[in-house]
Amino acid sequence: MKIMEHVSKKNVTIDDGFFGFYTRLVRDTMIPYQWEVLNDRVPEAEPSHAVKNFKIAAGLEKGDFHGFVFQDSDVAKWLEAVGHSLMTHPDPELEKTADEMIDLIEKAQCSDGYLDTYFIINKNEKRWTNLCECHELYCAGHLIEAAVAYYEATGKDKLLKVACRFADLIDSIFGSEEGKIKGYPGHQEIELALVKLYKATGDPKYLKLSSYFINERGKEPNYFLYEWENVRNRISHWTKREEPAPNLEYNQAHRPVRQQDKAVGHAVRAVYMYSAMADIAYETSDRELFEVCRKLWENITTRRMYITGGIGSTRHGEAFTFDYDLPNDTVYAETCASIGLVFFSHRMLKMDPSGEYGDVMEKILYNLVPGSMSRNGKEFFYVNPLEVWPEACKKDPGKHHVKAKRQKWFSCACCPPNIARLLASLGDYIYSVNNDTLFTHLYIGGTVEANIRNQKVLISQNSKYPYDGEIEFSISLNQPMNFKFAVRVPSWCRKFEIYINNQKAGYEIKKGYAYINRTWHNGESIRIFFEMPVEIIASNPKVRENAGKVCIMRGPLVYCLEEIDNGPNLSAISLCVDKEFKTGNANDLPEGTVIITGEGFRTVEEGWNDELYKPYRSVETRPVKIKAIPYYLWGNRGEGEMLVWIRAR
Amino acid sequence: MKIMEHVSKKNVTIDDGFFGFYTRLVRDTMIPYQWEVLNDRVPEAEPSHAVKNFKIAAGLEKGDFHGFVFQDSDVAKWLEAVGHSLMTHPDPELEKTADEMIDLIEKAQCSDGYLDTYFIINKNEKRWTNLCECHELYCAGHLIEAAVAYYEATGKDKLLKVACRFADLIDSIFGSEEGKIKGYPGHQEIELALVKLYKATGDPKYLKLSSYFINERGKEPNYFLYEWENVRNRISHWTKREEPAPNLEYNQAHRPVRQQDKAVGHAVRAVYMYSAMADIAYETSDRELFEVCRKLWENITTRRMYITGGIGSTRHGEAFTFDYDLPNDTVYAETCASIGLVFFSHRMLKMDPSGEYGDVMEKILYNLVPGSMSRNGKEFFYVNPLEVWPEACKKDPGKHHVKAKRQKWFSCACCPPNIARLLASLGDYIYSVNNDTLFTHLYIGGTVEANIRNQKVLISQNSKYPYDGEIEFSISLNQPMNFKFAVRVPSWCRKFEIYINNQKAGYEIKKGYAYINRTWHNGESIRIFFEMPVEIIASNPKVRENAGKVCIMRGPLVYCLEEIDNGPNLSAISLCVDKEFKTGNANDLPEGTVIITGEGFRTVEEGWNDELYKPYRSVETRPVKIKAIPYYLWGNRGEGEMLVWIRAR
Repeated sequence: MKIMEHVSKKNVTIDDGFFGFYTRLVRDTMIPYQWEVLNDRVPEAEPSHAVKNFKIAAGLEKGDFHGFVFQDSDVAKWLEAVGHSLMTHPDPELEKTADEMIDLIEKAQCSDGYLDTYFIINKNEKRWTNLCECHELYCAGHLIEAAVAYYEATGKDKLLKVACRFADLIDSIFGSEEGKIKGYPGHQEIELALVKLYKATGDPKYLKLSSYFINERGKEPNYFLYEWENVRNRISHWTKREEPAPNLEYNQAHRPVRQQDKAVGHAVRAVYMYSAMADIAYETSDRELFEVCRKLWENITTRRMYITGGIGSTRHGEAFTFDYDLPNDTVYAETCASIGLVFFSHRMLKMDPSGEYGDVMEKILYNLVPGSMSRNGKEFFYVNPLEVWPEACKKDPGKHHVKAKRQKWFSCACCPPNIARLLASLGDYIYSVNNDTLFTHLYIGGTVEANIRNQKVLISQNSKYPYDGEIEFSISLNQPMNFKFAVRVPSWCRKFEIYINNQKAGYEIKKGYAYINRTWHNGESIRIFFEMPVEIIASNPKVRENAGKVCIMRGPLVYCLEEIDNGPNLSAISLCVDKEFKTGNANDLPEGTVIITGEGFRTVEEGWNDELYKPYRSVETRPVKIKAIPYYLWGNRGEGEMLVWIRAR
Repeated sequence: MKIMEHVSKKNVTIDDGFFGFYTRLVRDTMIPYQWEVLNDRVPEAEPSHAVKNFKIAAGLEKGDFHGFVFQDSDVAKWLEAVGHSLMTHPDPELEKTADEMIDLIEKAQCSDGYLDTYFIINKNEKRWTNLCECHELYCAGHLIEAAVAYYEATGKDKLLKVACRFADLIDSIFGSEEGKIKGYPGHQEIELALVKLYKATGDPKYLKLSSYFINERGKEPNYFLYEWENVRNRISHWTKREEPAPNLEYNQAHRPVRQQDKAVGHAVRAVYMYSAMADIAYETSDRELFEVCRKLWENITTRRMYITGGIGSTRHGEAFTFDYDLPNDTVYAETCASIGLVFFSHRMLKMDPSGEYGDVMEKILYNLVPGSMSRNGKEFFYVNPLEVWPEACKKDPGKHHVKAKRQKWFSCACCPPNIARLLASLGDYIYSVNNDTLFTHLYIGGTVEANIRNQKVLISQNSKYPYDGEIEFSISLNQPMNFKFAVRVPSWCRKFEIYINNQKAGYEIKKGYAYINRTWHNGESIRIFFEMPVEIIASNPKVRENAGKVCIMRGPLVYCLEEIDNGPNLSAISLCVDKEFKTGNANDLPEGTVIITGEGFRTVEEGWNDELYKPYRSVETRPVKIKAIPYYLWGNRGEGEMLVWIRAR
């Protein structure tokens, strides 16, 4: 199953009109700002206490643990983002800060390798007694991911050694061998981290432990039920009282992983687990596991994914619900879940060079992820709605979880550092190599240095994507070389042309990629023109929420209406789908933003007075101009209504 | 403010094609069946334990209290229904059963008059310590209502004396006088009951106590906050733990009642309170209080009421939300809340002879109330949705409260006996007299014997309403007599004609009533023809849920689509509003039911395969026949989808 290898961000630079802004934002603002938050130095943000927990655990300060049981992971995700960033953008001062944090983590580690400040501070005897709810293995996973990233970026192995000691302890405690706990994490994460640790250290026991966690999960007798009944005496960590047996679907532990064929339960847990499954399938050439992954990936992307790339239809359990249930206004679509779907798709791609995976990554990277953060990098959405009526968010308890404004930080702050680590490692997602083929999955400007059959190729990419479909590549080679250059043809694209050195070029289309096979010479250029008209998109009729409605798209970008441009009550607007749409600019949005205008009608509110209901024949509409902006920019011009799915006329 | 007096059901008989079925069902099935349920003799229904609680409290059996803290009220509401029923339909065996229950209640009463089995059985020292949550005054109210109804029907005063003793005890404990508790009920109900007790006994102290409860409510310092802090030490009855301060809006105690102008909080509590306010305004000629009632009534009916007469938009607190927030699929629209709105409207009518009140009563009586029960009288909806997707009700936790099938009983069984007592007293709602005018509010066949200026008038009413707009009245008089005969012109009616003795008659229209002023002779007939075409109704554009959608109505009846007639996925259907609609019959619905057929289009699902999203231009629709049935009959032919608001084409 080892079909492709992704080119590491180490060999990729990003110089891109769209993502340059965000990757700079991560380095210049998000990483420093989040460090301040983790140290409780941002008065407007909810206090984190995360660094302080480590200080207390290390015996350097007195006090109690504060925050969620998984608070440690916020520090780890930050360190991972720092690692990714240092790999491409060295920064001695940042590295010094990180080294100090790592020293602190090392000091907090117990002599046996254990490392979780919640339990170290005052519950040491409770270690491993509530895997279902208490996130110890989840936090361990993030620590491992941070350690690997930091080691790969800096060559420093202090944190890696800390992580190995902890992983070794975990390996001695968990497993199917006699005397070990036959458990697995409540919140999956360590599984994918252990594969990274295996690859960083070469030690197969970490891969084996990861496989154990995956394969044991959901088997009978069910460990979470056993633990609930016999280990924690039905007491819940959250309520401190007896509670009913855990919902096994929530944890994807309702049946053995290989028998799962629908994405269920907590969406972040699900996609983190599927990512690890894909990793294991890749590393161990496990075709069966790949097929399971494929079924789950298809279930998500063809039945349970919003057009923005959001997943998780309900706030109850932050979870998937069922096929085609995609409500726009009570949606969950947690930022972390979509980031996890990027991880999962990226891993599937290594085993299956199919454009679909890149399509999904692109959808999330251009819509949900940038939409989840403010342009100043300091405010975030946890929930990413497709329809917002601010009054309802405030006054309807069923919509309280949907916010009309990004927030500075969250008591459960999983999303902001997850965005930082994704964007800081964006270089990992663009290119792959398979024998004689160099794949381009994403149209993100910059350079790549790839090795094709032991020969170096340097390619630079340049475009105004996602606002313009013209992409230019130029090739630097020491000597002429035959290889296939494969570019993903986005699923939104109906028509495209490829030119080599200004001559129309031939290519072969296979599973969403255009393959150009020739002998390349130094200095040659490839230009691709993806036609990028305004497209009016409908939902599968089984998505009842969107019946009779359409979404405006252009290229990979989903567009939306905002109250500031279209007036209050966006539901009163219907869009003339057959009239002309025009692209243009707006001076209250970032330079280069392409907005879309069209024609529509608005139901006239005047004349209704105090009637709630009256004959339809007396309802009047009037023509209005419609102005749509890219979804990822919504909510940056004050609080107001927002709408993605518009009634078609 | 004493403008009209309603004619009592004592002087009204019901012989009606529509309601005859339901009033018989109450007598023949619901009252006997509910008695079995209250005695835990229906194995398929959730056990009630309500009668047993009285036996235990009376010392006749051993055991613990079971059920909700307001379980007693189920027995009281049943007894009230029995009282109403006996008034018009004597039934010695039923009366004997009721007398035995009353003996039991009397035995359960404490020597000081206290009567609430939850507290008597094991919490006597906790009496009156949690008015906010514990429903003692609510249960007292239902006991009083039952006592008055039973006394009026049978002349037997045993239960009335029980109620008076309890009311006297309450009067000695609550009030603004030094040494009394300055509290009021968490769940309003006793206020309107005390007005009934005042009228039955003539004792003004009950009216005074009712006024006290209304006028004290919501004043500063707030009693519920005081009680939470100082009486119950922040402990909640429900969780038995410390909980935050109560939500005062939920209890309509957020400000003095006379300063309230929006319907907020728990919908049943709200309308029960408004009903009592209207009673007090009537009895004490309190114009200010009437104006407050009017504002609240307008807020509900012009901003917060479903087209079926449902109120309460959210399950969170079973509550009102905010203006124009009327979601169809996450709706609450509790049966009891709409019954309470009938109570409130009926009371407003006595002070304000305006057709609007009858319009609202009619809307609820022909749509929500009969829709909330099965045709066999044994299954009920607590929540009355306007859009049901059974899969979502099961798999989306945000819709678990919406049921696609009526249930046999509920652990919180407030609704079924409420329906019984409303339908058993339906005769109270049809006619009123004001000096020289006899008003007809509802088109329910039967007879009325009214006193107009001390002269007796006997009128019989006959129609096939709500399926036919022709209503015939015939008048029996001992001697010719001049009076005004006023009939409500339903707000749904655009055109009507009135004939007297087959001659077109003149009339004066005033606030929704047509007044015919003449000297009437014995044997004369009045025939009214309300044109009753199919009407396509739209919502106020501020109701976002219904944007672009219409509802089919005919006369007072709201129609809906069901899966059994129109296939699965009703959201894929759009209705041709300009094409012809036809009325017809269906042999799988009760005889006489008028169904409506029309034309529409259905989005074609074939050809979508696994795509979630694709260009709108490739979406196909095909013409389909639409079959709509009266909303009140939905869910009687197996479980399936249902839809009231249909996309307009």
